[in-house]
Amino acid sequence: MLTAKLIDNIWATRKCESLNGLKFMLAEVIGGIEAGRRLIVVDTISAGIGDRVIVCTGSSARRMLDDDKIPVDAVVVGIIDEDCNFE
Amino acid sequence: MLTAKLIDNIWATRKCESLNGLKFMLAEVIGGIEAGRRLIVVDTISAGIGDRVIVCTGSSARRMLDDDKIPVDAVVVGIIDEDCNFE
Amino acid sequence: MLTAKLIDNIWATRKCESLNGLKFMLAEVIGGIEAGRRLIVVDTISAGIGDRVIVCTGSSARRMLDDDKIPVDAVVVGIIDEDCNFE
Amino acid sequence: MLTAKLIDNIWATRKCESLNGLKFMLAEVIGGIEAGRRLIVVDTISAGIGDRVIVCTGSSARRMLDDDKIPVDAVVVGIIDEDCNFE
Amino acid sequence: MLTAKLIDNIWATRKCESLNGLKFMLAEVIGGIEAGRRLIVVDTISAGIGDRVIVCTGSSARRMLDDDKIPVDAVVVGIIDEDCNFE
Repeated sequence: MLTAKLIDNIWATRKCESLNGLKFMLAEVIGGIEAGRRLIVVDTISAGIGDRVIVCTGSSARRMLDDDKIPVDAVVVGIIDEDCNFE
Repeated sequence: MLTAKLIDNIWATRKCESLNGLKFMLAEVIGGIEAGRRLIVVDTISAGIGDRVIVCTGSSARRMLDDDKIPVDAVVVGIIDEDCNFE
Repeated sequence: MLTAKLIDNIWATRKCESLNGLKFMLAEVIGGIEAGRRLIVVDTISAGIGDRVIVCTGSSARRMLDDDKIPVDAVVVGIIDEDCNFE
Repeated sequence: MLTAKLIDNIWATRKCESLNGLKFMLAEVIGGIEAGRRLIVVDTISAGIGDRVIVCTGSSARRMLDDDKIPVDAVVVGIIDEDCNFE
Repeated sequence: MLTAKLIDNIWATRKCESLNGLKFMLAEVIGGIEAGRRLIVVDTISAGIGDRVIVCTGSSARRMLDDDKIPVDAVVVGIIDEDCNFE
């Protein structure tokens, strides 16, 4: 999984029907040589802008959603505790 | 998913039969350290050159298409609203 | 998918049995910040050295082959038209 | 798989329910041009901070866990022997 | 697939049970802008240190092994012929 910070919301009125109702956010990888890499993630655990989160990618990301038929490849699976400091 | 801009059409007369009828476009990632990375995507929601789109990749991308047997690994799943400004 | 140019043939006499009879080629990504990235692809649509092709990767690549049991992660799915000029 | 060093623990109280009870750690890739790339991994074989480990990623990572429904894309599958020196 | 050179053996006494008996090797990508990227691969076709090999990654890699339940994401699928010179 990736360590990322949620930096903004993404709005897309025209989209694949199965994505209706999902919340899309822009995340930026933090730490390591991939810091600054950006990806769009789906959030289902009420994370907010500024939160540091754990992002799961690929086919595993769909496991977070009820429907395995959804075209989603990155999902917020956890919010890192505020008092969790890592190197 | 990736944030990308559609920059051109791609034409391939000779291709895998199951791809007949699909519309291929060239997309360029925008934002972050991967900005400028290019990939070919399939569009099924009538996106056009210049649109900023959400691109889903990998096995999840096939979920957008009716047929899971298709050799496609990147699909446009949404068009980002024109008035959506993100950092 | 990736935009790549086929640059050479790859010969491997000793290989996984299920790969017997497949044609392996060396492809180099063209365009964008990944230009110059190389990968070995399987060609089943009679592409040749010098052709610009569409390469599908990952589990989706196997969809091009008749047998989903084959250890292949990159396949040529289309040959870009010679008169197709993209940015 | 990747060669990585475990460098810290990651705590996330709020997370996807199916992840409860799993141990998350921050790993940093060692060796090669990807050295310094960081990812969050799940450990189920009692690895500790400082250990050099083998990390399996993608859908294969879920094979380590009992439940294929879990949104996990990177798992520690082995601890490299302390006396194993590689180039 | 990737073109890589096998550069060393990797020993991990403590590992996921399903991996017992498998031979792990350190491979380094050769050619292109990813040259120098390292990954751990499973070898089942008796490749040796110094061999140039074809490495299949991701879910496709498991196809080489008898058991699809194994947490492996990179496998040697072929040994490139010694007299095969590519650009």
